[in-house]
Amino acid sequence: MTQKLLVLGGGFGGLYAARELRKRFGAEAEIQLISEENYFVFQPLLPEVAAGAIMDMHAVTSLRELLKGVRLRKATIHSVDFERQVVTVFQGVQRRPTEIAYDHLVVAMGSRIDLSRVPGLEEHALKMKTLEDARRLRAHIIERLEHADVTFLPEVKREALTFVVVGAGFSGIETIGEMKELIDRSLKYYPNIDPSEVRVIAVEFAPRALNELPESLAAYAVKQLEKRGVEILLNTGVASATGRRLVTSGGEVIPTRTIVATIGNAPSPVVLDMNLELAHGRVAVERTMQAKGRKNVWSLGDCAMIPMKDDATERGDFATPTAQFAVREAVQLAANIQRAVAGKPLKPFKYKSRGALASLGARRGVAEIFGVKLSGYPAWLLWRMYYLSFMPGFDTKLRVFLNWLLDSMRPRSVVALKAPQETAAHYVHYAAGDPVFEKGNRSDGFYTVVEGRFEVCLRDDDTGETTTYEVGPGGHFGERMLMGESTRFGTVRALTDGKVLVLGRDEFTKLTGTFGALGVYFEEYLKSTYALNWKAPQSDNKVA
Amino acid sequence: MTQKLLVLGGGFGGLYAARELRKRFGAEAEIQLISEENYFVFQPLLPEVAAGAIMDMHAVTSLRELLKGVRLRKATIHSVDFERQVVTVFQGVQRRPTEIAYDHLVVAMGSRIDLSRVPGLEEHALKMKTLEDARRLRAHIIERLEHADVTFLPEVKREALTFVVVGAGFSGIETIGEMKELIDRSLKYYPNIDPSEVRVIAVEFAPRALNELPESLAAYAVKQLEKRGVEILLNTGVASATGRRLVTSGGEVIPTRTIVATIGNAPSPVVLDMNLELAHGRVAVERTMQAKGRKNVWSLGDCAMIPMKDDATERGDFATPTAQFAVREAVQLAANIQRAVAGKPLKPFKYKSRGALASLGARRGVAEIFGVKLSGYPAWLLWRMYYLSFMPGFDTKLRVFLNWLLDSMRPRSVVALKAPQETAAHYVHYAAGDPVFEKGNRSDGFYTVVEGRFEVCLRDDDTGETTTYEVGPGGHFGERMLMGESTRFGTVRALTDGKVLVLGRDEFTKLTGTFGALGVYFEEYLKSTYALNWKAPQSDNKVA
Repeated sequence: MTQKLLVLGGGFGGLYAARELRKRFGAEAEIQLISEENYFVFQPLLPEVAAGAIMDMHAVTSLRELLKGVRLRKATIHSVDFERQVVTVFQGVQRRPTEIAYDHLVVAMGSRIDLSRVPGLEEHALKMKTLEDARRLRAHIIERLEHADVTFLPEVKREALTFVVVGAGFSGIETIGEMKELIDRSLKYYPNIDPSEVRVIAVEFAPRALNELPESLAAYAVKQLEKRGVEILLNTGVASATGRRLVTSGGEVIPTRTIVATIGNAPSPVVLDMNLELAHGRVAVERTMQAKGRKNVWSLGDCAMIPMKDDATERGDFATPTAQFAVREAVQLAANIQRAVAGKPLKPFKYKSRGALASLGARRGVAEIFGVKLSGYPAWLLWRMYYLSFMPGFDTKLRVFLNWLLDSMRPRSVVALKAPQETAAHYVHYAAGDPVFEKGNRSDGFYTVVEGRFEVCLRDDDTGETTTYEVGPGGHFGERMLMGESTRFGTVRALTDGKVLVLGRDEFTKLTGTFGALGVYFEEYLKSTYALNWKAPQSDNKVA
Repeated sequence: MTQKLLVLGGGFGGLYAARELRKRFGAEAEIQLISEENYFVFQPLLPEVAAGAIMDMHAVTSLRELLKGVRLRKATIHSVDFERQVVTVFQGVQRRPTEIAYDHLVVAMGSRIDLSRVPGLEEHALKMKTLEDARRLRAHIIERLEHADVTFLPEVKREALTFVVVGAGFSGIETIGEMKELIDRSLKYYPNIDPSEVRVIAVEFAPRALNELPESLAAYAVKQLEKRGVEILLNTGVASATGRRLVTSGGEVIPTRTIVATIGNAPSPVVLDMNLELAHGRVAVERTMQAKGRKNVWSLGDCAMIPMKDDATERGDFATPTAQFAVREAVQLAANIQRAVAGKPLKPFKYKSRGALASLGARRGVAEIFGVKLSGYPAWLLWRMYYLSFMPGFDTKLRVFLNWLLDSMRPRSVVALKAPQETAAHYVHYAAGDPVFEKGNRSDGFYTVVEGRFEVCLRDDDTGETTTYEVGPGGHFGERMLMGESTRFGTVRALTDGKVLVLGRDEFTKLTGTFGALGVYFEEYLKSTYALNWKAPQSDNKVA
């Protein structure tokens, strides 16, 4: 009987598992991979995308090109029924559910970033996990340079030119090194920015950077980055963040418009919803990568907690969540599924890391391969060669190689392309005393209060009279844009530390202009609060 | 005295005017250009971006690289005070207004697309005007192929594989030719799509395509495209559009998920707000490009109506809104500003088109240069050579050339990157009888009714009992997602032709979960309509 093998997730674990299954089963199995995107992201290159050394398209490869003989289904996973052995997905703009049956299921959904433990960090930090994150970071950095170049306000310039990266592990160090290179190479286009005005800071909770590498290499990396003007604050956590500052665990306030968080790995929500047995937020599996307590379910990569010995308890007893491990896990997992189908005994996953490499940007790196330490240019060159060879797909390799070559010879572009935003409803944190907006500012959104107290101050230009009122949780301000005004009429500031929800102007005015009950509310509100006559849309719900 | 010369807009007209002013004035003027983006878009290449022949970054060049000696201000224009000679802008995330003074102002704001004359077209057509439009179109086409490859529903597949372009002028023909090439080259990755299932259709109101070119070349273009499987419907307008179909002026219904509109040029809203004298929606200027009735204000490019003779009345009496003309206008405009500053008499704009070229994709083109007609491969090659030489910036040229080379030798990528969306609140049109959503569908948004009547049908799974009610303008449905449900409980269909506003799930649940008065409304609504207990957030507006 043809086996139905279904892989969830198109990252390192899922991609390589599907390829390996194809190799082993040939035409004896129907192999299908479900992914939200139709491309594979080569994660190690994301810092280079964020820095514009290569373009976004260069860090990704079409899954259809990589998965010959495997059916790709671009879809969102809704739920898994382990009893019926069926996965329900939503695909395309189509909102109907589609059911996919399986004989063996491979869960390779990776991880996500969760910053909710630090107040304000989730809302105000940029992340470095997905391709969109990298695109957003690049656009964000260049926008800050654009603004710093033209602003007349010194404090705005200072905030715009301070860039903070939270975490100095692999991802943090690579990100900050590349960011610094992008900024350094771009400054020639910004005549009003003096290099001395730029601050690039890494904040690391641990007493050292690059925990994954020997101490001497970490020290070298720190020295190299410091030589290039990067500040590295060790033993320093993050206490809170707003859109204009980061407060460290030591109480230092860093005024900044750019916080990049490279910490906080957490399980993907889809995996949490699956009702699988978890260990430390990851899928609990046997040494054979079978999910505990489930039949014909397997898991690997960042989302699985794979014991490397029988009585695994310590962090070091489990497989490391890296690409290097995921690719090896995929081989063993595919072999085990083949054994399971043939009724043969399964084998545990075994692997020893071959080493680690990190790029520091600006042609410097650190590496430890089979116990041999390397640093500087040779380590950087090795980093590039290793990843070029590791990267799947000939065309991706070719294009990355050509673009590295171009980047080494030609100036780097400062074009800031728009990146996709996650939502039009953002939470924003304020510290007590912070201005939210001032009279005459651009009206860019409608504000509702989640936490804290805010003061609205209205001044009549004719009489000079001032009215002040407070708004607390559930309340709102900024609604006068319904009158078509493009700038603010009042001034709002935070009386306490607080959090608001900002809904975009377009979304708010369209919704209020259509939704009858909401329109009636604002018609009355504008009349009673400001004596303004605004006409609500007709309300006509439920005409039986 | 140093002259303050201010250019609004960074398209062909603005860019070349600023460069020309720099050349003529040298250090004797402070030249500043204000643009919403920090890059120049090479519009002729947008169809190639949409088709993935080159990447988005290749069709743009950094304005800072192109504008040496000119100050660039990335900002949004708010208003112009012609009396005080001051432009007010908003820049960066900063919402404070900034004032920029000028001695001479050049308005080069281009045009925008307005499709509002055809019901549903504005809401359901993709455009081809900005770089974002091109990025969206490419992602959209590939998403349709992804969906068609996996759906089990024949009507969904048919809709997904029908692509309609409205307009068969230059932009329409170039867009459809490139789209067809992208689809043809991609199909090898989609094993479940048969080439015969794909329909690519151009709809043109006029009796012929490519009105700008001699009839024989237009006929050649149509024949070439038809040979490649493109259908071209002449003498055919668009009567209406929804998310699932286009209805022609002849009453033909084309089921499709892809409508690309290349028609409907209209003035930019900022220009309309400026209170300048307009002619046919464009800035009315003298033959010297001075704005009528204003001092020290000039206009050129797509946003200006430039007479080419003294008693200009016919369309042909005015400068054509093309890049070729804009670049020539820039030269004359800069010379006139120099003459005005020196107190010398101004000169009228004069230019005769050198010809026109169009690419048909798949290495075919048509061209007329100095009266000589060319078609096929030589015309296509000439097109590429001409635009490569015309393109500003050495690095852009180099990268475009390399990518054309790669594209000619290697397969084209089907990676669908997310493109930035304009808003999270979309209007959607339905024809009478259309389903809006069905029980069990994914809950993706909250619906309010703008026009028409809709029927909500609820079925109790336990009792089998059915409740039906109607919703009209101002009313809403889809609010049950507040209960955390990820799929629909009821089924909704359009009773009449209608229009709704859909607010994204994330935006709606965040807003309702924060905004007290709205929460109270839904608490009561859910209780009275469905006997559901949902807890509204605390409401605390205005605590004096």
